Amino acid sequence: MTQTVPNIDTVRELAARYNNWGKWGPDDELGTLNHVTPEKVRAAAGLVRKGKVFSLALPLDQNGPQTGSFGRYNPLHHMIWDGGDIISGAQDHLAEIRYTDDAAYIILQSSTQWDALAHIFHDGKMYNGYGPELVTSRGAARNGIINTRDRMVGRGVLLDIPRHQDRRWLEPGEAIQEADLEACAQAQGVAVGEGDFVLVRTGQIAQRRDIGNWGDYAGGPAPGLGVSAADYFCPRDVAAVVTDTWGTEVLPNETPDVFQPLHIIMLLNAGIHLGEIWDLEALAEDCAEDGVYEFQLVAPPLTITGAVGSPVNPQAIK
Amino acid sequence: MTQTVPNIDTVRELAARYNNWGKWGPDDELGTLNHVTPEKVRAAAGLVRKGKVFSLALPLDQNGPQTGSFGRYNPLHHMIWDGGDIISGAQDHLAEIRYTDDAAYIILQSSTQWDALAHIFHDGKMYNGYGPELVTSRGAARNGIINTRDRMVGRGVLLDIPRHQDRRWLEPGEAIQEADLEACAQAQGVAVGEGDFVLVRTGQIAQRRDIGNWGDYAGGPAPGLGVSAADYFCPRDVAAVVTDTWGTEVLPNETPDVFQPLHIIMLLNAGIHLGEIWDLEALAEDCAEDGVYEFQLVAPPLTITGAVGSPVNPQAIK
Amino acid sequence: MTQTVPNIDTVRELAARYNNWGKWGPDDELGTLNHVTPEKVRAAAGLVRKGKVFSLALPLDQNGPQTGSFGRYNPLHHMIWDGGDIISGAQDHLAEIRYTDDAAYIILQSSTQWDALAHIFHDGKMYNGYGPELVTSRGAARNGIINTRDRMVGRGVLLDIPRHQDRRWLEPGEAIQEADLEACAQAQGVAVGEGDFVLVRTGQIAQRRDIGNWGDYAGGPAPGLGVSAADYFCPRDVAAVVTDTWGTEVLPNETPDVFQPLHIIMLLNAGIHLGEIWDLEALAEDCAEDGVYEFQLVAPPLTITGAVGSPVNPQAIK
Amino acid sequence: MTQTVPNIDTVRELAARYNNWGKWGPDDELGTLNHVTPEKVRAAAGLVRKGKVFSLALPLDQNGPQTGSFGRYNPLHHMIWDGGDIISGAQDHLAEIRYTDDAAYIILQSSTQWDALAHIFHDGKMYNGYGPELVTSRGAARNGIINTRDRMVGRGVLLDIPRHQDRRWLEPGEAIQEADLEACAQAQGVAVGEGDFVLVRTGQIAQRRDIGNWGDYAGGPAPGLGVSAADYFCPRDVAAVVTDTWGTEVLPNETPDVFQPLHIIMLLNAGIHLGEIWDLEALAEDCAEDGVYEFQLVAPPLTITGAVGSPVNPQAIK
Repeated sequence: MTQTVPNIDTVRELAARYNNWGKWGPDDELGTLNHVTPEKVRAAAGLVRKGKVFSLALPLDQNGPQTGSFGRYNPLHHMIWDGGDIISGAQDHLAEIRYTDDAAYIILQSSTQWDALAHIFHDGKMYNGYGPELVTSRGAARNGIINTRDRMVGRGVLLDIPRHQDRRWLEPGEAIQEADLEACAQAQGVAVGEGDFVLVRTGQIAQRRDIGNWGDYAGGPAPGLGVSAADYFCPRDVAAVVTDTWGTEVLPNETPDVFQPLHIIMLLNAGIHLGEIWDLEALAEDCAEDGVYEFQLVAPPLTITGAVGSPVNPQAIK
Repeated sequence: MTQTVPNIDTVRELAARYNNWGKWGPDDELGTLNHVTPEKVRAAAGLVRKGKVFSLALPLDQNGPQTGSFGRYNPLHHMIWDGGDIISGAQDHLAEIRYTDDAAYIILQSSTQWDALAHIFHDGKMYNGYGPELVTSRGAARNGIINTRDRMVGRGVLLDIPRHQDRRWLEPGEAIQEADLEACAQAQGVAVGEGDFVLVRTGQIAQRRDIGNWGDYAGGPAPGLGVSAADYFCPRDVAAVVTDTWGTEVLPNETPDVFQPLHIIMLLNAGIHLGEIWDLEALAEDCAEDGVYEFQLVAPPLTITGAVGSPVNPQAIK
Repeated sequence: MTQTVPNIDTVRELAARYNNWGKWGPDDELGTLNHVTPEKVRAAAGLVRKGKVFSLALPLDQNGPQTGSFGRYNPLHHMIWDGGDIISGAQDHLAEIRYTDDAAYIILQSSTQWDALAHIFHDGKMYNGYGPELVTSRGAARNGIINTRDRMVGRGVLLDIPRHQDRRWLEPGEAIQEADLEACAQAQGVAVGEGDFVLVRTGQIAQRRDIGNWGDYAGGPAPGLGVSAADYFCPRDVAAVVTDTWGTEVLPNETPDVFQPLHIIMLLNAGIHLGEIWDLEALAEDCAEDGVYEFQLVAPPLTITGAVGSPVNPQAIK
Repeated sequence: MTQTVPNIDTVRELAARYNNWGKWGPDDELGTLNHVTPEKVRAAAGLVRKGKVFSLALPLDQNGPQTGSFGRYNPLHHMIWDGGDIISGAQDHLAEIRYTDDAAYIILQSSTQWDALAHIFHDGKMYNGYGPELVTSRGAARNGIINTRDRMVGRGVLLDIPRHQDRRWLEPGEAIQEADLEACAQAQGVAVGEGDFVLVRTGQIAQRRDIGNWGDYAGGPAPGLGVSAADYFCPRDVAAVVTDTWGTEVLPNETPDVFQPLHIIMLLNAGIHLGEIWDLEALAEDCAEDGVYEFQLVAPPLTITGAVGSPVNPQAIK
């Protein structure tokens, strides 16, 4: 059914089909992270064979992808004390030691990030049926990213779509459908199942590096998941889905009826956390080399009370 | 020798004895994180037996410990879009979906944190001999925390000093010396060795929770490591040392000659990264229960370019 | 009637009596600043006789009065380039010149400030009947302080209540009523009339300086205007009312029915801009010396688009 | 002499010729603002004839001219409480009243601004011979903009260079020389003298509005003052010089020897405060209409302790 062009009805049908509200109780704020049982955490650690660690985060600085689109800007970093103060004698009141200190202003979803379940609303509700009155200017009282503080640990699986298709990257506007995900996983010889953190590579970061600038990476046309991807991820009970793009989904979306329909189906209804702007390039190279597409993933958010997203420096450990 | 009251000479002698500058080449920016080999990363993953995850971070909010002392303040969190906007119709231009977004202003070492090797200077130098001119108002060109983006993964060991002494916590001003560390490790039946991330619990966070407010936790009198702790950690080639206090070291320091002498000996000369304000309470409870004081530790910093420290949400996985 | 203890009925009656909505058209965003005609601007300039200028702003820094109460903090100031960079050679790529640069994070009503007409709501409306949906997370689309960018110029009058009563300051909890204002103006020999900016001194800043710390100045008990002050200011068609306190009004308020009732009557219904945390001490000294309690006042807000208040450095020119 | 192409020698000679260090004592931090005597303040108020007020500030928002050049960004504005919170009931704990509140992160010289005397250094000194060690990461201990808190009041004079030349604006790269200033003042029938705040219009803001975007306004090629302008302003003992451009001076500068040579001559040596990015368009229209190019100018900086510049909403009152 979702082979055809989706519309608002498709989206509503899939949302209803994969809805997990109440599944883990009326107070749940974790969604499919509930699938990551201690047994799965233990098993994921068993995937560490080479002892090789990959940081999947972009540098957080003014060279990041944001341009002000959607009110998002790259982070600002300022020194509170720096080496110049040491040279100039500004710390000579200290006994022997000198030090530096700093601060940053970060729009939390401006770079490599987790969307919290409080990030997306539809028909006046967020995941598990909580209302928008629970996210005030003081932050999210429900579904904040802080709930996941010790839950972003488990088995990671990389699905390298362009490499599977012998291409360097997908082009903006190309959708990754259910069949593409299945074919890629099969070719890679990796299973995707309950409690997995699935990292889908589109290659868009590689493409922008090739061009030499981010262009409209943040918010513009992008390769990404099509609506039918929900039919792949939801029945498999994955824990989270991640891409190397700004917004998970193919842009422009497949239908003008709904902006970011998979966010509604997967994050809001199914309770699947989404990761965005993850840099999968080095990890993908390594997976291609050793043919191993699974690993331990540890991607803890900052513990900002009330935050609806978080910068993250995800660690893929092979 | 370091049994006696230390002074500037003691500090200089220990600094020279444990100096690692050049050991990993003139361009090294990792220090003793170099001891964390792939083999050690692999072995650390093998410590995951129960699949239980502990987040060792305090909540990042205005209830944090900072008071303005040393120019540090608790973080500020603001919403860019929130539920009120959704209710009021401010996003009705979007097709179906609604969303929230947010930002934070964070003084990077205001809560659970890593000190970068660029954080501490003495005699005009930081770790590996780099000069203060390399840390301008634009950030650290050397020894920034971003260098450790994929290196904060390995074997964690908890040394629960007060519990070993049948106490709830150490009092401000109490120093933990080499002999205390040895006795504690021995009693816990855990070895501390090359490439380990050693978490030393003083119980000060428990104490402040008992009082009901942070008081002068940030910068005031505190239990912590005495200078002789260097004789414990440095010869063992540990990767990093962490405490549940603001500044690692006993405060007031054992000598007025030098403020924070262990920072000079261990961080600056030996190249040992220091973690501070880590919340070890729940982990310590669990270790006391199962008698297992070792675990996989994954504590990735934010990848802020040029930063001399980073907030962190450390994951202890048992 | 407002002699007796006010309650919600009193407030609603005064609000209705002094309501100016629609008086200057359905699109008005200026309120009683409309009374400041060019003729009044011209006349106010004529009050400059000595050529003496008073800045009525507190320093904007971490020694300010905020404590986190009501989510307000003192401003943070950071250097982007400083003298240390110059000394260390970080700007040696520049030809001859060197420079410094800086930034500040300011909670807009944390110190000497103007309340915008978008700052206060009651029964779902702000001044002139605009609804709360017009103040989104993107700022105020109506009644923002930017509307007053060229309107905060006119005749200033100081009413020095404690000096009139031969006291150094009023105590927290002491209300200034209509009769007090009348008696003070008469004793000072100054008339208060249409289009005036009236500065009411309680002396609370002097009191806190005497103590040596701000204490609960920001949000705690305070001297200030009682509800009957509306009967003084509203019929006189003043342009704006200013105090040297955090919140204009006596705290605790005279009735528990309504928090900050005068804000509802005067700012919201009458459209009178309120200034708060103005430092009137030096000006009051001068007025007592020369017996002249009127002056030109120029107090332009920052032109932050969408802001609901603004820091201000008011200039009283005598 | 300054008719010929200037170079480093020219700059040094003019700097020496117009140097005012020590003229007002070794502790002076005001420079030529010392020329603005009470008598001049009084006389300036006498220039108010029509009672018409002009705000010369651009809106402070993300539509401002900054692009990250020189590390400067447009300001960020966030709501702490907004109308959505009121609608959603987030303030229902308050008795009757509801309110909004907000904050801004402002790079202080990112829009309409004053340069402090602490902003510019040459040969290791700022105005009056103070060294760079006095501007640490904690801000400026000397020559900060806060010193001018009650000094930015006096006679303003507009020199509308393009209108005098029957043009809409000067083109980027066009220098305004001493002779141009003289001719313009003469044609306008206005004298420029001691203690004046001189506003020089290049029309670049009009040009960018005509184009529809700021382009490289902030830091790119610009019309502006040539080095010989020092021969016009310095002997006349003006208080301050202002332009409608990012950096006062013609860009590219007339010599590659020195970046922004007039900043060294006029601000650093003569102690003349410089205002930049002032929007003179509406004022210029009015002056052209009534032929009156003088007015009262009141342009108070924010009182940020230690700041080396300040946003300002200058008021020209005619």
